[in-house]
Amino acid sequence: MKRLIVCLLLVVLFASSSTFAKEEPIFPVRAPKLIDLAKSELGKKLYYERRLSQSGHFSCNLCHNLSLGGVDNLQFPIGDKWQKGRINTPTVLNSSLNFSQYWDGRAATLEEQARSSIENPASMATPHVLVADVLKTIPGYVTEFKQVFDDGAITIASVASAIAEFEKTLVTPNSPFDMWLLGNKNAISEYELSGYKIFKNVGCTNCHNGPGVGGQSFQKLGVFEPYKTTHPSRGRSAITGELIDDNVFKVPLLRNIELTYPYFHDGAIKTLEEAVNTMGRVQLGIQFNDDETARVVAFLKTLTGVQPSFPLPTLPASGVDTPRPSPF
Amino acid sequence: MKRLIVCLLLVVLFASSSTFAKEEPIFPVRAPKLIDLAKSELGKKLYYERRLSQSGHFSCNLCHNLSLGGVDNLQFPIGDKWQKGRINTPTVLNSSLNFSQYWDGRAATLEEQARSSIENPASMATPHVLVADVLKTIPGYVTEFKQVFDDGAITIASVASAIAEFEKTLVTPNSPFDMWLLGNKNAISEYELSGYKIFKNVGCTNCHNGPGVGGQSFQKLGVFEPYKTTHPSRGRSAITGELIDDNVFKVPLLRNIELTYPYFHDGAIKTLEEAVNTMGRVQLGIQFNDDETARVVAFLKTLTGVQPSFPLPTLPASGVDTPRPSPF
Repeated sequence: MKRLIVCLLLVVLFASSSTFAKEEPIFPVRAPKLIDLAKSELGKKLYYERRLSQSGHFSCNLCHNLSLGGVDNLQFPIGDKWQKGRINTPTVLNSSLNFSQYWDGRAATLEEQARSSIENPASMATPHVLVADVLKTIPGYVTEFKQVFDDGAITIASVASAIAEFEKTLVTPNSPFDMWLLGNKNAISEYELSGYKIFKNVGCTNCHNGPGVGGQSFQKLGVFEPYKTTHPSRGRSAITGELIDDNVFKVPLLRNIELTYPYFHDGAIKTLEEAVNTMGRVQLGIQFNDDETARVVAFLKTLTGVQPSFPLPTLPASGVDTPRPSPF
Repeated sequence: MKRLIVCLLLVVLFASSSTFAKEEPIFPVRAPKLIDLAKSELGKKLYYERRLSQSGHFSCNLCHNLSLGGVDNLQFPIGDKWQKGRINTPTVLNSSLNFSQYWDGRAATLEEQARSSIENPASMATPHVLVADVLKTIPGYVTEFKQVFDDGAITIASVASAIAEFEKTLVTPNSPFDMWLLGNKNAISEYELSGYKIFKNVGCTNCHNGPGVGGQSFQKLGVFEPYKTTHPSRGRSAITGELIDDNVFKVPLLRNIELTYPYFHDGAIKTLEEAVNTMGRVQLGIQFNDDETARVVAFLKTLTGVQPSFPLPTLPASGVDTPRPSPF
């Protein structure tokens, strides 16, 4: 393995970095393009809007916390009335780079994911008709929806559309690794680069590729040996009903992975070291030594990009007729 | 009453507005002075820090939401494990203008309030030693506490001190009424001004005065007639043990009152109209007519100042040894 690393480092040294980067299986995250700004600003408010939940307690941000990697950093999310959520929370950061949403890919789009989580009794637990009924009575939203949508309609469709537009902006470009991909050879250390070489050579990039370093395919968890878990989820098979989809999950994004602990769909993996070793073993049949693990982890930490930062949104006050939350 | 309003309006028209304003019982909110900026920036992070709660769910901002008036807009807050809180959440906005904290004034300072709510089993439910144990294992905080505090100590005292420093910045200056106080005669309408005259003349400003329009004294709730409520709190008497303090509460701030619904310690009052009428009746023995109520409400809405807005804080990642949250 060491010889391999040295060999690859030499290749890097002699290759033109820009030519080289184009041949990499991982692409830089791009800044968001063609954003409807007014819609995104409305979506930002709705993302923080706790009146989207019947209890008045939950907003999108409560589980997909933009101050810390777009997740809740819990094994399982806390839902309406302190219910224990079913599955570890995936990050909202760069979620527009996923080819489908949720661990089992059951939502095709960001809009669909937003609609579904608002209604899910284990999450925000809010009937879609109530979402519209609440927002229609808030004068600030009535005017803002008119600004954004031609017909000014406040429906679950327009709400989800605005939230999705905002979520498209939640990409994290300019990570050290992306700067390296874009030609700055000093953006990551040789040690970190050696971790990337291992990552690529052993086959991690077969699935963790593209701009999201994942999110492009469904794959079976447990190729070389079964992944041991007490978690009941069977992944895709619950959607397709096909035995072949048993334990098949969407490959998660590895962008900002150092922030989005704990790991795996069962949230049972606490550290990046454990995640790397487990994936090596069950997916690739490889037992990394401590040095290799440390190098791969060092590489993974170069995938942390510039986090979203914007002025805190101020939300419009309820109207006299706005239905009041009922948390208890 | 109408004659009185006309009379007072004439006084206003003939008085020099700047001289006049100086004699008002309400003073403008001032921008924060002498802030330790590094400490306040640390405090801002801690204000949003959900790892201050054992569950990993609660931050200060979860009940004192800076996107909506510094409150949760619920009758009673939701606490650890979805417990129903005891009393309506007071706003954090301008809370530095209170002479003491909580409805019953049991905390003398912002620091004391922060310490108490972090530990309260019905709120964040986190032993103080755990707060320090968690933060000490987060590398980003270890360095930041060294920047801010000479000894770099991470203790509940330094945590509360930083949060309080941030909270001192959460004032809301430049409301229309303050602009009027500062000499801009066109900052509020004649209609709004007439509401202020009623507010002042009937005696509201006996208690609701100063820069916070309240927060300067304890007063008995129910002077002219008892305030009807099923709420068990007896206010100050629970602190002092004195019968005379029965139903005595801190006079709440009226700054941003249009945002901080529902009202009163029992959160039973849903609208500003109801709040004005109830206070007139039980505190002053006055029955406002609809026109008077509407004018006072119009005045109260001129107390909404510029809301806090700052770039969303990005929080440092947990370390390998950081105790994990235990919400369930």
